[in-house]
Amino acid sequence: MTGGDDLRANEKAIDLAPASDAALRFIGWVRTPWQSRDDCPRQGRLDGPECRLELDPVWYEALRGLEDYRTIELLYWLDKSRRDLVLQSPKSDGRTLGTFALRSPVRPNPIGTSIVKLERIDAGNLFVRGLDCLDGTPLIDIKPDRCAFTPKAPSKPGDAEVQED
Amino acid sequence: MTGGDDLRANEKAIDLAPASDAALRFIGWVRTPWQSRDDCPRQGRLDGPECRLELDPVWYEALRGLEDYRTIELLYWLDKSRRDLVLQSPKSDGRTLGTFALRSPVRPNPIGTSIVKLERIDAGNLFVRGLDCLDGTPLIDIKPDRCAFTPKAPSKPGDAEVQED
Repeated sequence: MTGGDDLRANEKAIDLAPASDAALRFIGWVRTPWQSRDDCPRQGRLDGPECRLELDPVWYEALRGLEDYRTIELLYWLDKSRRDLVLQSPKSDGRTLGTFALRSPVRPNPIGTSIVKLERIDAGNLFVRGLDCLDGTPLIDIKPDRCAFTPKAPSKPGDAEVQED
Repeated sequence: MTGGDDLRANEKAIDLAPASDAALRFIGWVRTPWQSRDDCPRQGRLDGPECRLELDPVWYEALRGLEDYRTIELLYWLDKSRRDLVLQSPKSDGRTLGTFALRSPVRPNPIGTSIVKLERIDAGNLFVRGLDCLDGTPLIDIKPDRCAFTPKAPSKPGDAEVQED
Protein backbone atom coordinates (compact mmCIF):
# COMPACT_ATOMS: atom_id res chain seq x y z
CA MET A 1 0.00 0.00 0.00
CA THR A 2 2.97 2.28 -0.03
CA GLY A 3 4.33 2.80 -3.49
CA GLY A 4 7.33 0.65 -2.63
CA ASP A 5 10.02 1.20 -0.04
CA ASP A 6 12.23 3.73 -1.80
CA LEU A 7 12.05 7.37 -0.85
CA ARG A 8 10.82 9.80 -3.49
CA ALA A 9 12.38 13.24 -3.98
CA ASN A 10 12.35 15.32 -0.78
CA GLU A 11 10.70 12.65 1.32
CA LYS A 12 12.13 12.33 4.81
CA ALA A 13 12.36 9.32 7.11
CA ILE A 14 13.38 9.37 10.77
CA ASP A 15 15.11 6.81 12.97
CA LEU A 16 12.74 5.17 15.40
CA ALA A 17 13.06 2.46 18.04
CA PRO A 18 10.68 -0.48 17.55
CA ALA A 19 7.07 0.35 18.46
CA SER A 20 6.15 -0.96 21.90
CA ASP A 21 3.65 1.37 23.57
CA ALA A 22 0.54 -0.81 23.15
CA ALA A 23 -0.40 -4.04 21.38
CA LEU A 24 -3.20 -4.75 18.93
CA ARG A 25 -5.21 -7.92 18.57
CA PHE A 26 -6.51 -8.58 15.06
CA ILE A 27 -10.24 -9.37 15.12
CA GLY A 28 -10.50 -10.68 11.57
CA TRP A 29 -9.52 -10.10 7.97
CA VAL A 30 -10.70 -7.91 5.12
CA ARG A 31 -11.34 -9.70 1.83
CA THR A 32 -11.29 -7.37 -1.19
CA PRO A 33 -10.84 -7.80 -4.96
CA TRP A 34 -7.42 -6.10 -4.81
CA GLN A 35 -4.33 -8.31 -4.72
CA SER A 36 -1.64 -5.69 -5.28
CA ARG A 37 -1.07 -2.14 -4.13
CA ASP A 38 -1.42 -0.88 -7.69
CA ASP A 39 -4.89 -2.39 -8.01
CA CYS A 40 -6.32 -0.67 -4.92
CA PRO A 41 -8.34 2.51 -5.44
CA ARG A 42 -7.01 5.66 -3.75
CA GLN A 43 -10.33 6.07 -1.98
CA GLY A 44 -13.19 3.64 -1.49
CA ARG A 45 -16.63 4.48 -2.84
CA LEU A 46 -19.97 3.42 -1.41
CA ASP A 47 -21.01 2.12 -4.85
CA GLY A 48 -17.74 0.20 -5.25
CA PRO A 49 -17.26 -3.58 -5.25
CA GLU A 50 -18.64 -5.64 -2.39
CA CYS A 51 -15.98 -6.67 0.13
CA ARG A 52 -16.21 -9.19 2.95
CA LEU A 53 -15.09 -8.91 6.56
CA GLU A 54 -14.20 -12.31 7.96
CA LEU A 55 -14.54 -12.05 11.73
CA ASP A 56 -12.69 -14.28 14.21
CA PRO A 57 -15.46 -16.50 15.70
CA VAL A 58 -14.66 -15.41 19.28
CA TRP A 59 -16.18 -12.03 18.37
CA TYR A 60 -19.41 -13.19 16.67
CA GLU A 61 -21.61 -12.24 19.65
CA ALA A 62 -20.14 -8.73 19.60
CA LEU A 63 -22.06 -8.08 16.35
CA ARG A 64 -25.47 -8.12 18.10
CA GLY A 65 -27.39 -4.99 17.10
CA LEU A 66 -24.96 -3.89 14.39
CA GLU A 67 -27.47 -4.91 11.70
CA ASP A 68 -29.51 -1.79 12.63
CA TYR A 69 -26.86 0.43 11.03
CA ARG A 70 -26.66 1.15 7.35
CA THR A 71 -23.17 2.68 7.55
CA ILE A 72 -20.38 1.57 9.86
CA GLU A 73 -16.84 2.66 10.61
CA LEU A 74 -13.98 0.21 10.12
CA LEU A 75 -10.41 0.32 11.41
CA TYR A 76 -7.78 -1.90 9.85
CA TRP A 77 -4.03 -2.35 10.01
CA LEU A 78 -2.10 -1.47 6.86
CA ASP A 79 0.54 -4.07 7.53
CA LYS A 80 2.57 -3.47 4.37
CA SER A 81 3.29 0.18 5.12
CA ARG A 82 6.49 1.72 6.36
CA ARG A 83 6.06 3.88 9.47
CA ASP A 84 9.02 6.24 9.56
CA LEU A 85 8.19 9.03 7.08
CA VAL A 86 7.54 12.57 8.32
CA LEU A 87 7.49 14.16 4.85
CA GLN A 88 5.98 12.56 1.73
CA SER A 89 5.90 13.44 -1.98
CA PRO A 90 2.66 11.79 -3.12
CA LYS A 91 2.87 13.08 -6.69
CA SER A 92 6.53 12.09 -7.04
CA ASP A 93 7.22 15.66 -8.14
CA GLY A 94 9.34 16.56 -5.13
CA ARG A 95 6.65 18.71 -3.52
CA THR A 96 6.19 17.47 0.02
CA LEU A 97 3.49 17.40 2.63
CA GLY A 98 3.66 16.24 6.22
CA THR A 99 2.43 12.72 6.92
CA PHE A 100 -0.40 14.06 9.11
CA ALA A 101 -1.65 16.25 6.24
CA LEU A 102 -2.18 13.11 4.13
CA ARG A 103 -4.44 10.07 4.35
CA SER A 104 -1.59 7.94 2.96
CA PRO A 105 -1.18 4.45 4.45
CA VAL A 106 2.38 5.43 5.34
CA ARG A 107 2.15 6.80 8.90
CA PRO A 108 3.56 6.17 12.39
CA ASN A 109 0.65 3.85 13.17
CA PRO A 110 -0.67 2.58 9.83
CA ILE A 111 -4.34 2.39 10.75
CA GLY A 112 -6.85 2.91 7.97
CA THR A 113 -10.35 4.16 8.78
CA SER A 114 -13.30 3.94 6.40
CA ILE A 115 -17.00 4.61 6.54
CA VAL A 116 -18.63 1.77 4.60
CA LYS A 117 -22.12 0.70 3.62
CA LEU A 118 -23.21 -2.44 5.46
CA GLU A 119 -25.10 -4.67 3.03
CA ARG A 120 -25.70 -7.71 5.24
CA ILE A 121 -24.27 -9.92 7.96
CA ASP A 122 -24.20 -13.66 7.44
CA ALA A 123 -22.63 -16.15 9.87
CA GLY A 124 -19.84 -13.85 11.06
CA ASN A 125 -19.21 -12.41 7.61
CA LEU A 126 -20.01 -8.76 7.00
CA PHE A 127 -20.58 -7.67 3.40
CA VAL A 128 -19.71 -4.02 2.84
CA ARG A 129 -18.97 -1.46 0.11
CA GLY A 130 -16.60 1.48 0.33
CA LEU A 131 -13.21 -0.07 1.08
CA ASP A 132 -9.94 0.57 -0.74
CA CYS A 133 -7.47 -1.77 0.98
CA LEU A 134 -5.58 -4.89 -0.06
CA ASP A 135 -7.10 -8.35 0.20
CA GLY A 136 -5.94 -9.93 3.47
CA THR A 137 -5.68 -6.69 5.46
CA PRO A 138 -6.05 -7.34 9.22
CA LEU A 139 -9.21 -5.88 10.78
CA ILE A 140 -8.96 -4.15 14.15
CA ASP A 141 -12.34 -2.56 14.89
CA ILE A 142 -15.97 -2.17 13.79
CA LYS A 143 -18.14 0.69 15.13
CA PRO A 144 -21.48 2.23 14.21
CA ASP A 145 -21.00 5.35 12.07
CA ARG A 146 -20.74 8.25 14.51
CA CYS A 147 -23.32 10.25 12.56
CA ALA A 148 -25.97 7.54 12.96
CA PHE A 149 -25.12 6.62 16.55
CA THR A 150 -26.73 8.01 19.70
CA PRO A 151 -25.01 7.09 22.97
CA LYS A 152 -26.90 4.33 24.75
CA ALA A 153 -25.66 5.10 28.25
CA PRO A 154 -27.16 7.92 30.36
CA SER A 155 -25.70 11.34 29.58
CA LYS A 156 -23.07 12.93 31.81
CA PRO A 157 -22.42 16.52 32.94
CA GLY A 158 -19.65 16.92 30.34
CA ASP A 159 -22.18 16.49 27.53
CA ALA A 160 -23.49 20.01 28.18
CA GLU A 161 -20.10 21.75 28.32
CA VAL A 162 -19.56 24.36 25.65
CA GLN A 163 -16.72 26.77 25.00
CA GLU A 164 -16.22 29.72 27.29
CA ASP A 165 -16.48 33.07 25.55
CA MET B 1 -13.51 5.52 30.48
CA THR B 2 -15.25 2.26 31.21
CA GLY B 3 -17.64 2.58 34.07
CA GLY B 4 -15.34 0.56 36.31
CA ASP B 5 -14.17 -2.99 35.93
CA ASP B 6 -17.20 -4.92 37.20
CA LEU B 7 -19.57 -6.55 34.77
CA ARG B 8 -23.14 -5.23 34.65
CA ALA B 9 -26.15 -7.50 34.28
CA ASN B 10 -25.93 -9.74 31.20
CA GLU B 11 -22.57 -8.42 30.10
CA LYS B 12 -20.21 -11.08 28.79
CA ALA B 13 -16.42 -11.24 28.81
CA ILE B 14 -14.28 -13.81 27.00
CA ASP B 15 -10.86 -15.28 27.77
CA LEU B 16 -8.14 -13.90 25.54
CA ALA B 17 -4.41 -14.40 25.26
CA PRO B 18 -2.38 -11.17 25.55
CA ALA B 19 -2.59 -9.00 22.43
CA SER B 20 0.49 -9.38 20.24
CA ASP B 21 -0.47 -8.98 16.56
CA ALA B 22 0.98 -5.51 16.03
CA ALA B 23 2.51 -2.74 18.13
CA LEU B 24 1.56 0.91 18.42
CA ARG B 25 3.87 3.87 18.94
CA PHE B 26 2.28 6.80 20.78
CA ILE B 27 2.88 10.06 18.88
CA GLY B 28 1.83 12.39 21.68
CA TRP B 29 -0.75 13.09 24.35
CA VAL B 30 -4.22 14.56 24.50
CA ARG B 31 -4.77 17.26 27.12
CA THR B 32 -8.43 17.78 28.05
CA PRO B 33 -10.30 19.33 31.00
CA TRP B 34 -11.52 15.88 32.14
CA GLN B 35 -9.60 14.15 34.93
CA SER B 36 -11.98 11.28 35.67
CA ARG B 37 -14.14 8.99 33.59
CA ASP B 38 -17.30 10.47 35.10
CA ASP B 39 -16.33 13.98 33.99
CA CYS B 40 -15.92 13.05 30.30
CA PRO B 41 -18.82 13.76 27.96
CA ARG B 42 -20.33 10.76 26.16
CA GLN B 43 -19.69 12.45 22.84
CA GLY B 44 -17.50 15.40 21.97
CA ARG B 45 -19.05 18.51 20.44
CA LEU B 46 -17.44 20.91 18.02
CA ASP B 47 -18.45 23.83 20.26
CA GLY B 48 -17.07 22.08 23.35
CA PRO B 49 -14.01 23.08 25.40
CA GLU B 50 -10.69 23.62 23.67
CA CYS B 51 -8.32 20.67 24.07
CA ARG B 52 -4.61 20.47 23.26
CA LEU B 53 -2.67 17.79 21.43
CA GLU B 54 0.92 17.67 22.62
CA LEU B 55 2.93 16.08 19.81
CA ASP B 56 6.23 14.25 20.32
CA PRO B 57 8.84 16.60 18.74
CA VAL B 58 10.11 13.89 16.36
CA TRP B 59 6.81 14.31 14.47
CA TYR B 60 6.67 18.11 14.22
CA GLU B 61 7.60 18.15 10.53
CA ALA B 62 4.79 15.70 9.78
CA LEU B 63 2.30 18.53 10.47
CA ARG B 64 3.29 20.46 7.32
CA GLY B 65 0.14 21.33 5.38
CA LEU B 66 -2.30 20.25 8.09
CA GLU B 67 -3.11 23.89 8.82
CA ASP B 68 -5.12 23.95 5.57
CA TYR B 69 -7.80 21.77 7.15
CA ARG B 70 -10.57 23.06 9.35
CA THR B 71 -11.59 19.60 10.57
CA ILE B 72 -9.27 16.68 11.23
CA GLU B 73 -9.63 13.07 12.32
CA LEU B 74 -7.88 11.90 15.49
CA LEU B 75 -7.13 8.38 16.70
CA TYR B 76 -6.20 7.79 20.32
CA TRP B 77 -5.67 4.88 22.64
CA LEU B 78 -8.19 4.47 25.45
CA ASP B 79 -5.64 2.97 27.78
CA LYS B 80 -7.96 2.60 30.79
CA SER B 81 -10.45 0.33 29.02
CA ARG B 82 -10.87 -3.40 29.38
CA ARG B 83 -10.78 -5.29 26.08
CA ASP B 84 -12.56 -8.57 26.67
CA LEU B 85 -16.29 -7.77 26.50
CA VAL B 86 -18.42 -9.12 23.65
CA LEU B 87 -21.76 -8.02 25.16
CA GLN B 88 -22.35 -4.78 27.04
CA SER B 89 -25.26 -3.30 29.02
CA PRO B 90 -24.69 0.44 28.62
CA LYS B 91 -27.85 1.46 30.48
CA SER B 92 -27.18 -0.96 33.35
CA ASP B 93 -30.69 -2.30 32.79
CA GLY B 94 -29.60 -5.75 31.65
CA ARG B 95 -30.41 -5.13 28.00
CA THR B 96 -27.34 -5.95 26.01
CA LEU B 97 -25.78 -4.96 22.71
CA GLY B 98 -22.72 -6.35 21.01
CA THR B 99 -19.49 -4.40 21.47
CA PHE B 100 -19.33 -3.62 17.73
CA ALA B 101 -22.82 -2.08 17.86
CA LEU B 102 -21.56 0.49 20.39
CA ARG B 103 -19.04 3.30 20.33
CA SER B 104 -18.08 2.45 23.92
CA PRO B 105 -14.37 2.68 24.82
CA VAL B 106 -14.56 -0.98 25.88
CA ARG B 107 -13.55 -2.93 22.77
CA PRO B 108 -10.94 -5.47 21.60
CA ASN B 109 -8.68 -2.64 20.45
CA PRO B 110 -9.67 0.44 22.46
CA ILE B 111 -9.04 3.04 19.77
CA GLY B 112 -11.17 6.17 19.86
CA THR B 113 -11.78 8.15 16.68
CA SER B 114 -13.06 11.73 16.59
CA ILE B 115 -13.61 14.39 14.00
CA VAL B 116 -12.51 17.64 15.62
CA LYS B 117 -12.30 21.29 14.71
CA LEU B 118 -8.71 22.47 14.31
CA GLU B 119 -8.41 25.95 15.84
CA ARG B 120 -4.68 26.49 15.44
CA ILE B 121 -1.24 24.89 15.53
CA ASP B 122 1.47 26.45 17.66
CA ALA B 123 4.94 24.97 18.16
CA GLY B 124 3.87 21.34 17.95
CA ASN B 125 0.68 21.90 19.93
CA LEU B 126 -2.65 21.49 18.15
CA PHE B 127 -5.67 23.22 19.66
CA VAL B 128 -8.93 21.45 18.85
CA ARG B 129 -12.58 21.20 19.89
CA GLY B 130 -14.77 18.10 19.77
CA LEU B 131 -13.00 15.60 22.02
CA ASP B 132 -14.52 13.57 24.83
CA CYS B 133 -11.56 11.63 26.27
CA LEU B 134 -9.63 11.75 29.53
CA ASP B 135 -6.72 14.11 30.07
CA GLY B 136 -3.49 12.24 29.34
CA THR B 137 -4.90 9.91 26.68
CA PRO B 138 -2.16 8.70 24.29
CA LEU B 139 -2.47 9.98 20.72
CA ILE B 140 -1.86 7.57 17.85
CA ASP B 141 -2.79 9.37 14.61
CA ILE B 142 -3.84 12.66 13.00
CA LYS B 143 -5.39 12.74 9.52
CA PRO B 144 -7.24 15.30 7.42
CA ASP B 145 -11.02 14.77 7.65
CA ARG B 146 -11.90 12.35 4.84
CA CYS B 147 -14.71 14.62 3.65
CA ALA B 148 -12.36 17.55 3.09
CA PHE B 149 -9.47 15.53 1.67
CA THR B 150 -8.75 14.85 -2.00
CA PRO B 151 -6.05 12.27 -2.73
CA LYS B 152 -2.81 13.97 -3.71
CA ALA B 153 -1.32 11.05 -5.65
CA PRO B 154 -2.38 10.25 -9.24
CA SER B 155 -5.57 8.18 -9.46
CA LYS B 156 -5.47 4.43 -10.10
CA PRO B 157 -7.67 2.08 -12.13
CA GLY B 158 -9.48 0.91 -8.97
CA ASP B 159 -10.85 4.41 -8.41
CA ALA B 160 -13.34 3.88 -11.24
CA GLU B 161 -14.57 0.44 -10.13
CA VAL B 162 -18.24 0.30 -9.25
CA GLN B 163 -20.49 -2.56 -8.28
CA GLU B 164 -21.46 -5.11 -10.88
CA ASP B 165 -25.18 -5.34 -11.55
